Formats: sequence, C-alpha cells, structure tokens
Amino acid sequence: MSVITLYDIASGHPGQAWSPNTAKARYALNFKGIPHKTVFLEYLEIEPLCKKIGAKPTSQTSPQYTLPVIYDPSTDTVVSDSIEIAQYLDATYPTTPRLIPEATAALHYAFTDAFEATLPPLLTYALPASLPFLNPASQDYFRQTREALFGGRRLEDVTPTGEEHVAMWEKLKDAFGQIDGWIRKSGGGNKYFMGETICYADISVAGYLRWGRMVLEKEKYEEILTWHGGRWGTLMKEMEKYEIIY
Amino acid sequence: MSVITLYDIASGHPGQAWSPNTAKARYALNFKGIPHKTVFLEYLEIEPLCKKIGAKPTSQTSPQYTLPVIYDPSTDTVVSDSIEIAQYLDATYPTTPRLIPEATAALHYAFTDAFEATLPPLLTYALPASLPFLNPASQDYFRQTREALFGGRRLEDVTPTGEEHVAMWEKLKDAFGQIDGWIRKSGGGNKYFMGETICYADISVAGYLRWGRMVLEKEKYEEILTWHGGRWGTLMKEMEKYEIIY
Repeated sequence: MSVITLYDIASGHPGQAWSPNTAKARYALNFKGIPHKTVFLEYLEIEPLCKKIGAKPTSQTSPQYTLPVIYDPSTDTVVSDSIEIAQYLDATYPTTPRLIPEATAALHYAFTDAFEATLPPLLTYALPASLPFLNPASQDYFRQTREALFGGRRLEDVTPTGEEHVAMWEKLKDAFGQIDGWIRKSGGGNKYFMGETICYADISVAGYLRWGRMVLEKEKYEEILTWHGGRWGTLMKEMEKYEIIY
Repeated sequence: MSVITLYDIASGHPGQAWSPNTAKARYALNFKGIPHKTVFLEYLEIEPLCKKIGAKPTSQTSPQYTLPVIYDPSTDTVVSDSIEIAQYLDATYPTTPRLIPEATAALHYAFTDAFEATLPPLLTYALPASLPFLNPASQDYFRQTREALFGGRRLEDVTPTGEEHVAMWEKLKDAFGQIDGWIRKSGGGNKYFMGETICYADISVAGYLRWGRMVLEKEKYEEILTWHGGRWGTLMKEMEKYEIIY
C-alpha cells in the first residue's frame, strides 16, 4: 500500500527530525493514526522538490517554499503548510480524530498568527542552537537566511548571555505565559486549548517545545516544562506517543 | 424586575454610544436577548465607579480600569472586559445563543490578541476622529492618554494625509485582509468566523467597524464595507438588529 509522504528537513543526525513546523505535521499524522513515511531534504532541495510535485509556496513574497509538505497518493494531492495539512487530513480522513474541530478553522488561523507573535524570544535561543544540528549542506543556507532575521548578526553572537540572557529568558517565560493565559482563562482547569483533548493549537505549541528539546541546553528546556504549573511538561508527556518517525 | 447594567463611555451626543469595546458587550447582550440598561460615564468617573462596585482592573500595570463593565443584580456579579462578559453571559444564561461555543474560549482569547495586533492602522484614523465626539469633560483625559500612544504627537496631527494616508489606508486594508484570510481559509465560503452563526470573534470585529461608522468620514467607512467581497458590509448589516441602546 502506498502511504502519505511527509517531507521533512534533514539534520546531521540520521533519522532525527528537529524542525518545529514539520513536527506539527508529524504529530497530526500520528495523532490520527494515518500511515506515512518521511523523506528528509536539505534546504536547497526544498524548492526544486516543491516545484516538481506542485507544492504551493507558503509565502507569496519571493515566493518562498517551505516544509512541511505532504503528498497523499490515495487522492493524488500535495499540501503545504502545517495548518492546511491538518485541515486536509481532517477533511479527507473524517473517521480519524479531528485536529481542527467543526467550525473552529478561522479561530485556529487567528491563533496561528497570535502564536507566531509569541515566538521571537524562543527563536533567539533556538535558531543559533539549530545551526550545528544541521548537515553542512544546509548550514550555509540556514546561516544566511536566519542571520538576516537578526540584522545580519552572526548566529553565534545572537544567543543572549549575561544580563541580556536574564531579560530575554524572562521574555520567553512571558511569551509562554501569554499562551498559558489563553488556556487558563478559558476556564475549568483546562489542560489543553479545547479542554481534555488535543487540537491543532496544542500541536503547534508542542512542535516548538519539541524543537527546544532537540537543540536547547537540557536544563533550559527542562525549566520551560516546569513553568505555568507544569502545563508544558504535561503537554510534552502527552505528545510523546505521537513522535514516532516513520 | 431589575436588569443588568451596562456601563458605557459617554459622548457629547446624548444616548449615542461610540466605544468599540463597550459595543462588544452591547452586541453580546442584544444577541442573547438579555434585558439590560445603559449607564454612561465620563472617563474620570470610570475608576471610582469600578472601585465602588468592585469591578476588576483590566490591566495590572497601573492598574487600569476600563469599560465595558456589567453589573448583574440577579447574581450580584460585576464583570469587566468584553470577552469575560461574553463568557459570563454564556455560563449564566445557558439557554441564550452562545457567543463562545463549547471548548472555544482559549481559541477566542488567542483570537483577541491576534485581532488587537491588526488594530494600529484603524487607531490612527479613529482615535483622532473620536476626540470631537466626546464631552469636554472627557476630552482632556482622552487627549492625554491617546497622544501618549503616538509619542506625544497632537491627535490633530496624527490623522494621515497625502502620501502618508495612501500608505496607511493600504495598511488598514491589509489588516482587514488578514482577518478576512482567517475566515476565508476556514473554507466553505464561510460568512462568519464559525460559519453561518455570529460568535464573539465577529462581534469584536463589528465593535470596531461600528466605531468607524460613528467617527470616520462617511466615504471612508463605506469603502471599508466593500473590501474583501463585501464581507464587512454583510457583517454590519447582520449586526444592525443588535445595536439598540437600552
């Protein structure tokens, strides 16, 4: 039987995935129990592959091709972007658990923008830490594109140290505090965004926490898990069973 | 029978409401058909009233007291902040139509942050235009607090003109385009955030559009209604029946 192909970004560690965005698609596939296999690409292979199989760019300015992308042979469909992949899987495999429950897609899209606005402090730590994790073939591209986000500063100089670290770490805690607030204020001691069941919003947060686990210093990652009453530790514990790389 | 009191911000036009945030609470009460009456306050009356009736500040930095606030005599409860008011009304009057459907509160909180991030272009036009709409008693306070948002520039100098207007108007259209994108990408030609039925997210957008109707030049407001396939015109037409001020 031919199964869905999930295109992921390669690392220097064979079979180890690190990208937060492709992690969301893998969580989605595993959460739904949909058979799939992973193909790892170096950064410079992404655009040619996308053009070849007809994957849409995820940004029109350039245009920019990014992963995750899936190819589903059973419908001969290519889908880019993790939230669109979640929508596609919900629609195409309606007997599997939904990630974007009925009528909540627009709210999930709004969530995605609000969530992305919380990411800069995490990027400050996780982007520099990702560089040595990549294959040499991808390091130049990664350095060039990511240093541009920091006004051209060398990634090695971006990681905050000393007082700058203390202030940035506080900002990171506030960023997770903002997400915690959304869930906490929803009431009833909710564990996840929509209560007791994982949805696409939880998977998004987990994808980024997982990135932290792969690239940050162990004690930094483990501190995050304890914040906000251990909410993030609970989430990552729950997500463990959806991490298998096929 | 004693009814809910909705505290709103006075204008220089007796009985005319203008505040976008209090509009959300009024839409909520009217959408649910819950009897209520409005009490208009000048800005300087808000904090003393809130402290007197035990309304929570909506920001801890200061602390800052804002409207809307409601007092519900049937439960002897005071609630501040429009999203908390919507949650309270959903929970307390469960036979009325829900504004924040089951399990969507956390997503609505995330929406609120994403929506607020789209507002700066609208504020650039609507804040200066609101000043002459207020009673003299509130104008000094409004000028002082709102000019601080624009680095101390006089509100009269904030309204974009000439090329600055052309660029800012485009930004305003992009901001509404972002919101349109959330709904459009949710699929199925959805009219509103959650499909065919109004929810708290729609009411939030309508509250700000209504502010535009009250204070912007007529042709500017009417242009906005035509954007994105007339989505905003459709929304405001639907909301008309929930605008009555009791």
